[in-house]
Amino acid sequence: MERAQLVKQIFGRRSVLCVGLDTDLNKIPRHLLREADPGFSFNKAIIDATKEYTVAYKINTAFYEAQGIRGWESLQRTLEYIPEDIFTIADAKRGDIGNTADQYAKTFFETYPFDSVTVAPYMGSDSVKPFLQRKDKWAIVLGLTSNAGSADFQLQQCGSELLYEKVLRAVASWGSPDNLMFVIGATRKEQLQHVRQMLPDHFFLVPGVGAQGGDVPTVCGNAMNKDGGVLINVSRGVIYASNGEDFADEAAKAAKAYRDEMAVYL
Amino acid sequence: MERAQLVKQIFGRRSVLCVGLDTDLNKIPRHLLREADPGFSFNKAIIDATKEYTVAYKINTAFYEAQGIRGWESLQRTLEYIPEDIFTIADAKRGDIGNTADQYAKTFFETYPFDSVTVAPYMGSDSVKPFLQRKDKWAIVLGLTSNAGSADFQLQQCGSELLYEKVLRAVASWGSPDNLMFVIGATRKEQLQHVRQMLPDHFFLVPGVGAQGGDVPTVCGNAMNKDGGVLINVSRGVIYASNGEDFADEAAKAAKAYRDEMAVYL
Repeated sequence: MERAQLVKQIFGRRSVLCVGLDTDLNKIPRHLLREADPGFSFNKAIIDATKEYTVAYKINTAFYEAQGIRGWESLQRTLEYIPEDIFTIADAKRGDIGNTADQYAKTFFETYPFDSVTVAPYMGSDSVKPFLQRKDKWAIVLGLTSNAGSADFQLQQCGSELLYEKVLRAVASWGSPDNLMFVIGATRKEQLQHVRQMLPDHFFLVPGVGAQGGDVPTVCGNAMNKDGGVLINVSRGVIYASNGEDFADEAAKAAKAYRDEMAVYL
Repeated sequence: MERAQLVKQIFGRRSVLCVGLDTDLNKIPRHLLREADPGFSFNKAIIDATKEYTVAYKINTAFYEAQGIRGWESLQRTLEYIPEDIFTIADAKRGDIGNTADQYAKTFFETYPFDSVTVAPYMGSDSVKPFLQRKDKWAIVLGLTSNAGSADFQLQQCGSELLYEKVLRAVASWGSPDNLMFVIGATRKEQLQHVRQMLPDHFFLVPGVGAQGGDVPTVCGNAMNKDGGVLINVSRGVIYASNGEDFADEAAKAAKAYRDEMAVYL
């Protein structure tokens, strides 16, 4: 999907909500386990219930890989079921070099035709550039993550800046705001303002809202730009809003509530 | 596999050779494409031809993932075919947090029962520790890689040390030499000596020998310890020694030549 189309969806739906399909067969409503493909049945119901309020779906590949071939089949069915006009993210956090990175790009841009894939930066330019070679396909590179361990390296001083700042600066120079986004798991106002100041034009994929403690007004109020500029991911807060027969209705209510909070800023 | 068994294999075979199964259907001998599972047929022949000289096989998951379900079937058949006494590495470079990292650990330790998986450190302790919870299973964490891009971040000054040194020091404190190895793609004598001095007891997975310019005497002469302490990975230099009908014989010769170079040090 090209940037202009993503922006059109954001302002059309007045939403920057990304629903994270971290579909765990141990957490979905019991009655779905009778289905032939419980993971897909769950995702299909969640997508039907939330697509009106959502501009992106993020598939966390780990939950599918762990099931082996069955999981990859659920992933493929889910990807095919997501409406054309909604941005798709393979949250796979791949990172390797040269011909191996080419194979990962093929996996998530061709074999499974996502719009974007999350990428880890540790190995440097030759681990990121292979994901920037296809029209309308995006690399979403880890910048600042929202977990406790982000302090171990990302927040360490490296020369005149912190490591994550060095990463943002360097990676931004390898692509453009039309094929590169960053994972910015910031929940604090100052961090969000700082990163937006560093990168005025790029989209940020922002996890950490809901279960992880972040909130929509803080993110929208401090990290948006004229194109919206953020995709706020919520996983558990939407897909596990209820684990009963009413799970889809409750997911719809949760997604609508997030959308309504976002609409104020769009 | 526990450390003692790996060390026993190393001294029994007088080898630290790891053969990298970066099996690319565009590079394997044409005649194999007539087989039902060409990737597995190729790997099976390579394993039969090289297992006498090899203490580890490294499956580069990207080449299998890119083929979708077919690829995962080849991966599973290959893993099942590798002899019990040879150490197996899923070169998947996963890196994510908490419950997602648990899913990746499940993928490569249970769904596909490898002995070890390569892990990226950027997200910090909660992205590595989930791989250190199972008996006789190993995380092999990226330390210093051999690609040009390693200069972008790994070789940057971070406080009193380089980033990769900070990573080695921190990650080593999260596990032990019995469940933690590091990827050390060093080809220079001084680097190898320095890393061995920092971490006297850990095993290093060393790529970069052969096609990438490193050589066995430099690695063995500078990075080995009393247990061997290194696994030297060669991929193209063995599996693509020939792309004709004689590919397996040529792979055997190449593996034997590497083993003979290594035996001097064991």
